[in-house]
Parts: sequence; structure tokens; C-alpha cells
Amino acid sequence: MVTWNNLDTVKAYENLQKVTPVNLAAVMAGENGAERVRKYSVPMAAGMAYSYAAKQVDDEVLAALAALAEEMQLTEKFEALYNGEVINTGEKRMVLHHMTRGQLGNAVVADGTDKRAFYVEQQNRIAELATKVHNGEITNAAGEKFTTVVQIGIGGSDLGPRAMYLALENWARVNNTFKMEARFISNVDPDDAAAVLATIDVAHSLFVLVSKSGTTLETLTNESFVKDALAKAGLDASKHMIAVTSETSPLAKSDDYLAAFFMDDYIGGRFSSTSAVGGAVLSLAFGPEVFARFLDGAAEEDKLATKKDIRENPALLDALIGVYERNVLGYPATAVLPYSQALSRFPAHLQQLDMESNGKSVNRFGEPVNYVTGPVIFGEPGTNGQHSFYQLLHQGTDIVPLQFLGFKNNQMGSDVVIQGSTSQQKLCANVVAQIVAFACGKADANRNKNFEGGRPSSIMIGEQLTPEALGAILAHFENKVMFQGFVWNINSFDQEGVQLGKVLATKVLKHETEGALKVYSELFNI
Amino acid sequence: MVTWNNLDTVKAYENLQKVTPVNLAAVMAGENGAERVRKYSVPMAAGMAYSYAAKQVDDEVLAALAALAEEMQLTEKFEALYNGEVINTGEKRMVLHHMTRGQLGNAVVADGTDKRAFYVEQQNRIAELATKVHNGEITNAAGEKFTTVVQIGIGGSDLGPRAMYLALENWARVNNTFKMEARFISNVDPDDAAAVLATIDVAHSLFVLVSKSGTTLETLTNESFVKDALAKAGLDASKHMIAVTSETSPLAKSDDYLAAFFMDDYIGGRFSSTSAVGGAVLSLAFGPEVFARFLDGAAEEDKLATKKDIRENPALLDALIGVYERNVLGYPATAVLPYSQALSRFPAHLQQLDMESNGKSVNRFGEPVNYVTGPVIFGEPGTNGQHSFYQLLHQGTDIVPLQFLGFKNNQMGSDVVIQGSTSQQKLCANVVAQIVAFACGKADANRNKNFEGGRPSSIMIGEQLTPEALGAILAHFENKVMFQGFVWNINSFDQEGVQLGKVLATKVLKHETEGALKVYSELFNI
Repeated sequence: MVTWNNLDTVKAYENLQKVTPVNLAAVMAGENGAERVRKYSVPMAAGMAYSYAAKQVDDEVLAALAALAEEMQLTEKFEALYNGEVINTGEKRMVLHHMTRGQLGNAVVADGTDKRAFYVEQQNRIAELATKVHNGEITNAAGEKFTTVVQIGIGGSDLGPRAMYLALENWARVNNTFKMEARFISNVDPDDAAAVLATIDVAHSLFVLVSKSGTTLETLTNESFVKDALAKAGLDASKHMIAVTSETSPLAKSDDYLAAFFMDDYIGGRFSSTSAVGGAVLSLAFGPEVFARFLDGAAEEDKLATKKDIRENPALLDALIGVYERNVLGYPATAVLPYSQALSRFPAHLQQLDMESNGKSVNRFGEPVNYVTGPVIFGEPGTNGQHSFYQLLHQGTDIVPLQFLGFKNNQMGSDVVIQGSTSQQKLCANVVAQIVAFACGKADANRNKNFEGGRPSSIMIGEQLTPEALGAILAHFENKVMFQGFVWNINSFDQEGVQLGKVLATKVLKHETEGALKVYSELFNI
Repeated sequence: MVTWNNLDTVKAYENLQKVTPVNLAAVMAGENGAERVRKYSVPMAAGMAYSYAAKQVDDEVLAALAALAEEMQLTEKFEALYNGEVINTGEKRMVLHHMTRGQLGNAVVADGTDKRAFYVEQQNRIAELATKVHNGEITNAAGEKFTTVVQIGIGGSDLGPRAMYLALENWARVNNTFKMEARFISNVDPDDAAAVLATIDVAHSLFVLVSKSGTTLETLTNESFVKDALAKAGLDASKHMIAVTSETSPLAKSDDYLAAFFMDDYIGGRFSSTSAVGGAVLSLAFGPEVFARFLDGAAEEDKLATKKDIRENPALLDALIGVYERNVLGYPATAVLPYSQALSRFPAHLQQLDMESNGKSVNRFGEPVNYVTGPVIFGEPGTNGQHSFYQLLHQGTDIVPLQFLGFKNNQMGSDVVIQGSTSQQKLCANVVAQIVAFACGKADANRNKNFEGGRPSSIMIGEQLTPEALGAILAHFENKVMFQGFVWNINSFDQEGVQLGKVLATKVLKHETEGALKVYSELFNI
């Protein structure tokens, strides 16, 4: 049995605050720094490694973090989660996204079904559909193959699948598994749908409508937008659309769709990239085998997250270091900096994953907490970010912890040698240089050119951004966020904070407004 | 004569800290809230308005901010800047980006030239080239028209022009001024260039190489990448490339380019969207007339920034409120939330503009400051963000000030009515609802569904995102950042913080490493 306690009530947290902070610039200098890089690294799935040498930790801090993990029963709480306890207490639901890619513990039965079997069944049904689309068994009314898949969804039905698609698009092209181009419509801004529709061939497009409830206003609005366009082109919309939804939603049994694939209430939108929400578009774009490899990477990483030793559990370790930085060292934000153009939208996905999960002020029992929880998350790919906001990261008045990602090899193979090195070597040299520049700094008598250092970072290092590596990275962050939610004793799996805006927007559209809301509405001529 | 003082040495700042903070949830409720919305609004250029009713200000706070502006001589400092004083003290340069779109004060002569005349000459030369490209006077070797323009640049040569292109792409399409599709290559990751080259027709592409110094490693590397591709296609690179650079750069007189257009050292990369850096690609994409309209909007907004009354000067007011939030109220980050899909990359541009300009720890004389300076800036378009990170903004433990943007009309015209309202009405209803939800909150006995409110925001409201409106918005933020730099007494126009990483990356590539740098380099097989 696990016990749910607030962070500020546990003895190990009190002890953590007493540990002498590490002087990062000092410990990362010289041979000691080299030794730290060799020592402070944990293997990840898909041959990757999580290196935390440039974090403000030493053996004493790590021991205090291990004690915190033990006292707060963090791996036991994960065990309870994957064995089907109702961890999402706000909505009284189990949390089963791990089961879309494997089964870590006991069978979990819900709604009269073994859930692992249910998720596998959906994957198989999607694989079957994708194969038929690819081989021409399923075509448009004219008997021609579909060439484009368009996902219609918002939030978790958009950011994750879109980031994963972009991450593997070029990899798939050079590995000859690229099947269909994917596009995404998300915003209720009508220009979003209009712009996508203006640049695709609707007659050869298959639309994937994604809404768990079947009632998401943005998504249904964009569905109508698309149906109008199909009708204007003389096409039968029901032959161009599939649905991804829950079995109980109005979309589930509708004749408006070629097929419907199911997710359920045990998977939050932001955790749904490995469910049918990501599965449909990614299987159609790259083939079911690529999606299966992505799931394999995630499953392998999940297994590491069950390990009790924090030095063997990269997600747990990352989570604990993040809590130390946020609650003890007082850093308010975290930057995610992938040195891979393919991960251009991965920070936007993590922004949702982390901020929507852990941007909470009450604990899982609804009581206010007396400590800060989830930080602001932002990021852009390197080296682009270096020429943008890194100035503040290096010399600003706030310290922002950094999460780098880097790969030895690029995805597309082609490269060019300039000044004795390839672009890929330059890319890697830059990320390596940044880690040391942030950690160690460099003294200069001209204070404007002085770098204090002491700015912590970690890095995930992989051979190449493959489907397995992507799955491992995704699972790592999902599990990190989960563990941090456990430490803060919050419910990471609901999002009540998005409700009030929806309620007020409906009032505005019904003209049931007063006060400031009424005047603002008039300013917009609503 | 202006005097440069640190913020914590001026009397008005001491007084500002003593003013009673505004209880936003209270003042924004009921009829008082309505009155605030009517009262706390400043006209901007292009028919826009800056509404700050939902900021934590009242007449007393505003008076204290006005006193700060006066004591710190903020508009006088701007006057000194546009009259050609050496405001960029670190690099000993004038700061003349305003002059690319107008002349606010005296003629400024540098390098033997009247600078306004110089910038206008470059615009005219670009307009001439663009017109010849569009009408087929300048073609590829086969005599065929160019259809695509590809900008090669990084940082300020990429983010601003890219954000502006995306902002006007759909507007140009529906207004029949769309001339050429634009693409962008920036990252040294070879997959960036490879992916762009794989999806364009190089034989009909014109490349714009942008590097002020002519020595930016990423940009020169990508230039080689592109030249390789052109050579492989049997094309003469010099007939497919133009350069935007300084007159003293190695690119300026090279035969490798069809033409070269000039900027100079008085315009920082992040302030260069209205110079030849933005001018070439935007004039080629949309025609010189559209670029001229964009400049007109910026020029009109610049004039407002000269006004001494903070209630008539939206950029100054925005800057002062931001300082109040950052230094007195202690908020560490700011989110930029455009309710317009066309502004999808505008937050990324602002991230550079703001964080690279004001992420500094020393004042303009190189002395450390004792107060926080530039905040972390991040953002995504609404309504997408609502389904992502807004949870933390509404219910997280930190307060994040918000900058909304919204337009009464969409750009593309097409829309759909669902549940009695258009998508555009839904979009506007959402932004209005969010302002009030953040400010006022809503009490709920279930603490998990409780919204405390008190979360400040401002909004810029426009009729439509036109070239003029975009210019006005851009100039607003450039001027806001400048005024904040004046308040913090820092030099917003250099970026020494990006240098150390470059130096270390070069060492890595030369294998001149030791310690941590050496071990990390080995991990990447460099």
C-alpha cells in the first residue's frame, strides 16, 4: 500500500534542503569534470544515455534524492499506477497509457475488457486499415490511392502526433517507409483549416478526426469545415474520414466515417501519442511497422522507469533533479533544446505534457500545496536557439535549467564538409560546447564578456533519431512528469484549469455577458 | 543630455515599490471591470488598440510608472537613439533600425552616407530586382521564371523574416499579391537543408544568403550545401543566389551572387526584419508594395513611441507594466499568445528579440546590476495553447503575465457556421473569455475546480492581420524591448553571451579539448 503525502511533510525533503549545494563551475572543471561525465550517465532504451554530469548534483545530493524517492515510494506509486489503481483521483480513473506499448504488471480489466488486449486490438485494426490504404484495397470513390492523411484534432490530439510525425518524416523518406504525407488542422481560427485545404489535393486525402469525447468544439468545427470542402469538390465525406474516439462517443458508431478506432478515459490526451490517437496518423504516414518500432522503444524505456535504484532509472533521476532545481534551488523554468531539426515541435509537445500535467496548486486531495509545482517549459532546436534566446540563458539574471538532446548521426545521410568538418560534426560540437560553456563559464575582466557559469544542463545522447529512440525519449518525459507529480503529490492526469475559459467562451457566443466580458465582446463585434 | 542610471538608484522606482498593488480579480469584476476596459486602452497604428485593463494597474500605479518614465528620461533616450547617439555602447555603434522605415528626428550620417537615404536605396534596389524576377526579366538559365525563394540565414536572419512571411502568406494569397513561395534554411543540422532541398524545385528557386558579417558558420555551411545541390542539378549557383550582407563583408562584391543588398552594423539581427534582411525575401514573396505597407505600419507605430505621455505611447506603457510585473511583483516569465494561426512563429521571433536583447546581468557600463532583467518569453497561438499549457497559466503556482493578440476578421475570408457562430467568432470569444477567466477567476468549493484569478494580461486588438498591422505589432515589441533596456540600464543591442559557445565549439572541432569537453566530444565521436 502506498501513502500519499505532500512534499513538505516528508523527512527526506527536509534533509535535501540541508545538503550543501554543488558549485557546478568548480566540479565541472579539469579532470574532475571529465570523471563526472564518465560517471554520471544512465543507459536509456534504444542505445541512448541520459548524462547528468552537468547538473548540480554530487554523490551527497544523489543520496538525498534517493532517500526522497524511497520515502515518497515513487516506484511503488508507479507500480500501483500500471497495476490499475485509480491514480487520476480527480476524475476517478485509472491511468493506462503505458499499456498501449506493453504490460508492466498485472492484467487490468475495465469496461469488461482486458485493457492490454483492447489497445493491441486497436493497433491491429489500424495496421490492417493502413495496409489496405497503402496497397490500394481502400481508395477514394474514383478507385485512386490516398496520398495524404490529415489529422483533425487539438491539444493532445495534435501536438504529440504532429511532433512525432515531424520527428520521423525525413527518417522514413530515406528508409523507404514513407507512405503518405501528413498534415494537421487544429486551431479554431478558420485560416488554419483553409490554409491546409488550399495546399492539399482533397480528392486523395484521408482525414483522421480525433476527439475522445466526440464533443471538442474546435475539432467538430474543423470537421464541418473539411466536410464543406469535400462536398464542394463533389466528394462523399464518409469515404474520406476515419474517427479516433472513445467507444461511448457519438462518433463511434456513425456512418459518417470509413472506420472508427478507439481510445478510452484511462489515457489523457497529452499521453495519447502511443494510443490510436498517434497510431492512426503515424501508421498511415509511415506504415504500421514503424509505429510498432516506436512503441517498442517506449516499452523498453518504461521498463527502466520501474527500477528502484535512481542511478538506473533515468526518468526518475531526471524527475528528482528537476524537483531539486525547482523547489530547493528555486529555478522557475526549464528549456528543452534538441540538437535535431526533426525535433522542432517536440518542445511544444513537452510544453503541454509537463505544464498541463503539473501546473497545479492543489494536491491530489484538493488541498492547496505550500510549494511550487510544475515549471514553465519552452524550447527550440539547436543550433537555432543559440542565435536566439541563449543570450539570456548564458548571461541573464535568472538561471534556467536545460535539457539537451543530441544524436551522433543525422537522419538523411547527406552532408557537406566545410572547414574540415561535416555539418553533423558542427552540430554535435555545438551541443557539447554549450554544456561546458553553461556549466563552467569563463572569467573575463570585461564584465560584459564574463560568463559566470553554474548553469545546469543534462543531455540525452543517441546514435540516431530512429522510431525506437523517439519512443524512448517520449516515454522518458512522460514518466518524468508522472514521477514529479508523485513528488508534488498532485494529480498529473486531470486538467480542470482549462474549463473556466470554455464556460465563459460559450457565454460570449450566447451573448450572456456583463461587465468586462461584455465590453471586450463588443470590441470584437461578437 | 540624458543620464544613464540603474533602476535601483532612481527615486521613482522606490516610490513604485510603495504603491498598493491592485487586486485584479476585484477591480475587473462587475461594472468597474467594464469601465476599466473602456478606459485603459491606447490607440496603436493601423487602427489597432493596446488594451491593458486586465493588467495589475490603476491610476496610482500608472502615475508611478509615468514618474519612472520621466525620471529615467525614457522618451529622451529614444530621441537620443534615433538622432544617432552611440547607444550600443558595448560595440560602440549607433542603433538605426527605426530608420529603415522612416526618419523620426535628425538626419544621421555615417560611413559617409545619409543613413535614411542608404536604407531607402537598398529597398529600391530590392524592389527593382523583385519586380524583374516577377515579370520574367530575371530568370533561371533556361529563361524560366523563379517560383520559390529560399532564405538561408540563422537567428535574426531567420526568425523574424520567417515569422513575417508566415504572418502574411495567406493574406497575400487571398489578396492576389502572392508572388513566390518562400522557404527557410537555418539550422546547421544537415537534415534541415536536405529536407528543404528535397521538397523544392531547385531549378526554379532563388536563394537569399543572409549574413551581415559574411562569416556566420551555419549560414556559410548551408550555402555550400545548397551550392552542392545546384551543381548536382547542373545549375550555375551564381545565377540562383543573391546576398544580403554588409558592404564590408566578403560577400558584398563577390561574383558568386546575382546581386547583393546591404545592411550595416547599426542594425542588430533581431531588429532587422524591416531592413534588407526581411526586405529581400518578403518583397520577392509578396511584391515590394506589400513590404512597403509593412514598413508604413511600423513607421506609424514608431511615431507613437516618441510620445511623452505613457497613456498615448503603447510601447512605453507595455514596457513599464512589464518592468512592474518583473521587478516589483516578481513574475519570472511572459507568455505571448496570438489568436491567429498566421502568427504561429511570431512568439519565436519575440523570444529572440526580447531574451537576446535584455537577458543581461551587467549595465551599459559593464557593472553588475542588483535587480532582475529580461524574463523568459514563450508562446503558441490560441486556441491551440488553451488545450496545452494554459492549465499551468490558470492554476499553476507561478503567475505568468500574458500578452494576447486578436483580430476581428480572419485573413482568408472562408468560414463555417457551427452551433450558431462562425469559427472566427469562436476564436474571438475564446480570447475574450480567457482574459476575464485569468483576471477574475471563479470560486468553487472543490479546490481542484477553483480559479483564484488575479492573473494579468493585455491584448492588442486589430481589424485584421494586414501588412500595416503586422508592421505596427513588430515595431511595438521592438520599442517595448528598447524601453525596458533603458529602464534596466542595460545595452539591449549587443549579445556577448553567444560568444563562449562559439569559441568552445571551434575548439571541439579542432580537437583542442580537455576535461569534460573532451569526454563529451568522445561520446559524440567528434
